[in-house]
Amino acid sequence: MSETTTPEPTTVTVIGLGNLGQVLARTFLDQGHKVTVWNRSQDKADELVARGATLAATPAEAMGASDLVVICVLDYTTVRDLLTPAAGALAGRVVVNVTSGIPEAARELGAWITGQGAAYVDGAVYAIPQTVGTPAAFVLYSGDEDAFARYRTLLETLGSAEFAGSDAGLAAVHDVALLSGMYGMFAGFFQTVAVGGSAGIDATRITELLVRWLKEAIGALPGFAAEIDAGDYRTETSNMDINAVGLAHILTATRAQGVGVDLLAPLHALFERQVAEGHGAESLSRTIESLR
Amino acid sequence: MSETTTPEPTTVTVIGLGNLGQVLARTFLDQGHKVTVWNRSQDKADELVARGATLAATPAEAMGASDLVVICVLDYTTVRDLLTPAAGALAGRVVVNVTSGIPEAARELGAWITGQGAAYVDGAVYAIPQTVGTPAAFVLYSGDEDAFARYRTLLETLGSAEFAGSDAGLAAVHDVALLSGMYGMFAGFFQTVAVGGSAGIDATRITELLVRWLKEAIGALPGFAAEIDAGDYRTETSNMDINAVGLAHILTATRAQGVGVDLLAPLHALFERQVAEGHGAESLSRTIESLR
Ligand SMILES: NC(=O)c1ccc[n+]([C@@H]2O[C@H](COP(=O)([O-])OP(=O)(O)OC[C@H]3O[C@@H](n4cnc5c(N)ncnc54)[C@H](OP(=O)(O)O)[C@@H]3O)[C@@H](O)[C@H]2O)c1
Ligand SMILES: NC(=O)c1ccc[n+]([C@@H]2O[C@H](COP(=O)([O-])OP(=O)(O)OC[C@H]3O[C@@H](n4cnc5c(N)ncnc54)[C@H](OP(=O)(O)O)[C@@H]3O)[C@@H](O)[C@H]2O)c1
Repeated sequence: MSETTTPEPTTVTVIGLGNLGQVLARTFLDQGHKVTVWNRSQDKADELVARGATLAATPAEAMGASDLVVICVLDYTTVRDLLTPAAGALAGRVVVNVTSGIPEAARELGAWITGQGAAYVDGAVYAIPQTVGTPAAFVLYSGDEDAFARYRTLLETLGSAEFAGSDAGLAAVHDVALLSGMYGMFAGFFQTVAVGGSAGIDATRITELLVRWLKEAIGALPGFAAEIDAGDYRTETSNMDINAVGLAHILTATRAQGVGVDLLAPLHALFERQVAEGHGAESLSRTIESLR
Repeated sequence: MSETTTPEPTTVTVIGLGNLGQVLARTFLDQGHKVTVWNRSQDKADELVARGATLAATPAEAMGASDLVVICVLDYTTVRDLLTPAAGALAGRVVVNVTSGIPEAARELGAWITGQGAAYVDGAVYAIPQTVGTPAAFVLYSGDEDAFARYRTLLETLGSAEFAGSDAGLAAVHDVALLSGMYGMFAGFFQTVAVGGSAGIDATRITELLVRWLKEAIGALPGFAAEIDAGDYRTETSNMDINAVGLAHILTATRAQGVGVDLLAPLHALFERQVAEGHGAESLSRTIESLR
């Protein structure tokens, strides 16, 4: 399927050559495409030009060079600032914007770009520069599905490409959701390291154990999700009562070690709310009902 | 080494045959050991007795049957309540208690047991009943190192055994630390599902993506830990400024979706504290300095 086909060489413009944009442009070059680039600081294009890319003098010139325009800059305000003076060059093109942002900004930008006669696809990249183009990378897209389908094979070279829906804001909703999950895990990590450190356990050692444990504990999430989707919270294993008591002990022990509990106390409050509402014997996954 | 040696058959007592205790006893039986069991509700011993275990009438009788006594009940109060009337049977034995609890409770129990002339080893089990005895399981021990060493080979059959130190509370400190990390990840998961749900994305679908992303993001933790141990927070990639702005956007977008941010706002406050103290250009890992 698309994953194994080498895409036909095409013309592609990359606007924004920061850490991520550089690697996107290089990946397209490596695939034999004709790549035009633009960046505010021109020197960031040097290596790409040496590999065969064309440096455009302005964003408008860059956009004029290709049917497909990939944008990867700091934020949506920057995207708007760059595209506004170049609006005349937009008609008929496909703009794929992988700059990170919130759903509302993606929807507004999408509406504006569509208003200029271009097709808009918003993307959220789950990769770091080092993993772009490897099996670890994936990118979620939303917006114009036809435009996405046209360039899907090309986009698959960056990382596996998934289409989330025609609302241009959907890729960003996924982004907010998935990054929230990551930040939760990071909060847990800091808590782990702080408790370990309070007993003289170094961060490297406790993290080694944490990584091992999290890889197991992640296995519980699909089961929780299935319970949530079914709205069926019956359980024979780890119920709200057990977790409310367990987490209360953890908070007490953490305080006894002289470490703050601000990061975890709000989760305990959600558990307590479920217990107070009479759901102590139901699954831990029922916590979601306190959140929505 | 110990992992590949079949332990010499020995006598072992298991007190507490709940979900976990049953599997511990069964694993010892499967290894050919002479197993004596006791549980408050006697019927939970039926299957084990059918497989060759001996059911004792009292905790004291159970303890009298073996040099090694493994305890796995609800909590430390229960352990104390069971052992107090059986104190006369303790002298000369090794007690390995894998009941979950806080460091202070483990230290107190250890002191009391040692006072009865027994050796105390505290354990924290990182496994669920289904994974006991598989490579996924590991157990941390602390307390009497000689006693641990004597039974290490036997204990390795439950899951890989690691000794955390001679302070009996250390296994529980690790437990508090690692479960904190797990609860942080769970908090993130609930946030992910709530945000996804607010846009009509079902929990199963967003969790599939989250699991994929977390498995990548876990890869960042050892690097953060190394920075923390070195106290060297210089970075060229993901600094505090970027994360403070990124997480602020996530909180804004989450609120815009009608979802609460109680679980993640405290992490953002720690980021902001680091930025306010002038560390915006340093690594995200510096968040730990706001916690301790
Ligand atoms: N790096 C990652 O791992 C990663 C992963 C997923 C998503 N993202 C997202 O991808 C986007 C880019 O990330 P990055 O890591 O490449 O960032 P970066 O290295 O900081 O690069 C930022 C880019 O934006 C440009 N820029 C900033 N302000 C500008 C302005 N006022 N006018 C014109 N150009 C401006 C920069 O130009 P100069 O070179 O002239 O400064 C540079 O090309 C961000 O939205 C980020 O959240 C990054
Ligand atoms: N299950 C796991 O995956 C897991 C993993 C790691 C650690 N742990 C820890 O291991 C311990 C046991 O867990 P579990 O899952 O086996 O729990 P469980 O299935 O709820 O079993 C609890 C055990 O404690 C006994 N018990 C409770 N109150 C008692 C009392 N007042 N007097 C005498 N016995 C009493 C129960 O006896 P009855 O049968 O008579 O009720 C039963 O044997 C807990 O500390 C838990 O945190 C469990």
